[in-house]
Amino acid sequence: MTRIKAFAPATIANLGVGFDVLGMAVDTLGDYVTVEKSTEQGVEIVEITGDDGRLPKDPVENTAAVAAQSVLNAIDSQDGVRIWLEKGLPLASGMGSSAASAVAAAVAVNKLYDEPLTRDDLLPCVLDAEEKVSGRHADNVAPCLFGGIVLVTGETVQEIHRLPIPDGIYVSLVKPEVEVKTKDARSVLPKTVPLSALVYQTGVIAELIHALHQGNVHLMAQSMQRDAVVEPARSILIPHLNDARESALLAGALVTVISGSGPTLCSLCVTSQDAELVSRSLVEFYEGKGIAAQGYHVLPNRDGATIVSD
Amino acid sequence: MTRIKAFAPATIANLGVGFDVLGMAVDTLGDYVTVEKSTEQGVEIVEITGDDGRLPKDPVENTAAVAAQSVLNAIDSQDGVRIWLEKGLPLASGMGSSAASAVAAAVAVNKLYDEPLTRDDLLPCVLDAEEKVSGRHADNVAPCLFGGIVLVTGETVQEIHRLPIPDGIYVSLVKPEVEVKTKDARSVLPKTVPLSALVYQTGVIAELIHALHQGNVHLMAQSMQRDAVVEPARSILIPHLNDARESALLAGALVTVISGSGPTLCSLCVTSQDAELVSRSLVEFYEGKGIAAQGYHVLPNRDGATIVSD
Repeated sequence: MTRIKAFAPATIANLGVGFDVLGMAVDTLGDYVTVEKSTEQGVEIVEITGDDGRLPKDPVENTAAVAAQSVLNAIDSQDGVRIWLEKGLPLASGMGSSAASAVAAAVAVNKLYDEPLTRDDLLPCVLDAEEKVSGRHADNVAPCLFGGIVLVTGETVQEIHRLPIPDGIYVSLVKPEVEVKTKDARSVLPKTVPLSALVYQTGVIAELIHALHQGNVHLMAQSMQRDAVVEPARSILIPHLNDARESALLAGALVTVISGSGPTLCSLCVTSQDAELVSRSLVEFYEGKGIAAQGYHVLPNRDGATIVSD
Repeated sequence: MTRIKAFAPATIANLGVGFDVLGMAVDTLGDYVTVEKSTEQGVEIVEITGDDGRLPKDPVENTAAVAAQSVLNAIDSQDGVRIWLEKGLPLASGMGSSAASAVAAAVAVNKLYDEPLTRDDLLPCVLDAEEKVSGRHADNVAPCLFGGIVLVTGETVQEIHRLPIPDGIYVSLVKPEVEVKTKDARSVLPKTVPLSALVYQTGVIAELIHALHQGNVHLMAQSMQRDAVVEPARSILIPHLNDARESALLAGALVTVISGSGPTLCSLCVTSQDAELVSRSLVEFYEGKGIAAQGYHVLPNRDGATIVSD
C-alpha cells in the first residue's frame, strides 16, 4: 500500500501590524502527516503523536481529517484514507498548529491521488479545516500552503498575494509555557477603534509592504512594531511582555511581536547567531520569572508544505 | 532684480483606500509662484491671479507666503521677498490647491538663495503652510514636493516613502461645480470604526501597495475602489456619485475615486484616449444633471515641483 508523507510549516500570523491579513511561514518547525488509501470509506485517524493526547481523533473534529475529507470531496472520490499525524508544533502556541495539520493532510492526500488538484485548488479544502477550529480565515493556512510572506484580503486565491521576503532575515521563536486561548486573544480586542487609529494602522501596514518590496529589513522591523491596536490590547495576555521585548532587543532582535494570538514571541534578526542568542535570552528571561519556555531559531520558509520521503 | 518662477503640481490625496496617508502628483495642472528679493523685510504678496479674488493677501494667512517665510526662517535670512501667485488650481477642489501654492513658493524662494535647502529640508516649511489652511498633514504637500505616489506615515522625511508608479496610467480629473469644504468632508466621517473595518482596510491598502510595486494597474484600481470607510461616508457630499462612477466605468475608467476631500473625481485609465473620454463623459453627465463641470486628462507627475523659466 502506497504511503505518502507531507510536511507543513509553522506560520506566524499578523507580523505585528497585519492582524488577520499577514502571515509568514518558517522552516524546520511544523507538522507531518502520513496517509494511505483505506479499504473502508471515510477518513480514519490511525495515530496522533506529539500532542500529549489532547487532539480529537474523531474525523469531523480533527483538522487534518477535515482537510483530507475535503480533498476527497473535491476530487469526487468515495475512497477512504488512513492518517498518521505527527505534531511537531505545540498546540495553542500561536504558530499555526491547526493550519499545519490541515495543510499537511491536504497536500499528502492530493499526492496520494497523483495531484489532481493544484495548490490553489487546495485552499478551500484547508479553509474548511481551519474553520472547524479557529474560524474561516487564511492568515495561517495560506502561508503554510504557499510558503513565504502572504497577504490575505479574502478567501479566494485572487485575494491571496505572495509578498517578497527580504534577504537576510532570521527568526527567533520563543514559547513561554502559558496558555493563551485564541478565543481569549480575540475577546481582549477592542470592538471599535478611533478613525485616527485606522489612519495610523493603514499607513504603517502600507510602510511594511513597501519595506518588503524594497528588501529593507530595518524598515520592515520598524513598521511591524508600530501596531497601535492589536498588540497593545493583547499584551495583558503575555506575561512580562515589555521586559521580554527589552531583553530580546538587547540580545540583537530588530523587533519582537506576538506570533498569531500568542503566547509565542517572534523576533526578527539579521544573523543566525543573533536569532539563536535572542531565543536563548528570552528562554532565560522567562525561566528567571519561573516560567518554562522553549526557544527556536529558524529561517523563513519559501515553498510551503512539501512531500517528504516516508 | 532676479526673479524665480516655480511650478507645483496638483495632487490627489487618498487614492481611495489611503485616507490621509497616500497622495499622487499629476502633471500639467498646478500653481505658479514667482518671487524676487525685496528691499523691505517680510513677505509681501504682490498679486494673486486665477482665484477670483478669494485668497487672502495677508502674509500670515496666505499659504504661499507662510511657506516663503518659513524658508527664510530656515535659512536664517532677515530678507524680505515679494510674491506673485498664479492659481492654476481651483480652490476647495480636492486637488491640493493650498499645498501647490505653498510648495511652489518654498521651491522658488529656496532657488532664489541658490538652494541652501534640500527638498527634504523644505518639507517642514510647506507643512507649516499647510497647517494654516487645512491641518498639518503631508498627504498633499509631500507628493507635490517630491512627485509621484507618496506614502505618508508621519511628518518627518523618514516617514515619507516614494512608491513606484506603474507604467501606463492615465488620469481623468473632473470637478463638478459644487462646493465641498474640507471641514464638512471631515465632519461626515465616522469617529470610530469597527475592528473588522480596520482589518479590511489594512488588507486592502496592503494590496494597493503590493500592486504599485508589481506595476499591476488593474490590481491597483481594484484595491483603490475597495475603501469601505471614507468614500462611503463622503459619497453624500458628491452629487450623483454612484451614477457618475457608472458613467466613468462605461467610458473606460478602471476606477473612480474622490480626489482628496472632493468634489473632484479622479479616474484611472490605461490610455490617454480613455482618460479624455472619461473626462468628457463625466462633464456631460454632470451637465445633464444641471451641474457645470471641468474635465482634465493628465499623466502622473514624477518629479514634483520644478523651477520654470519666467
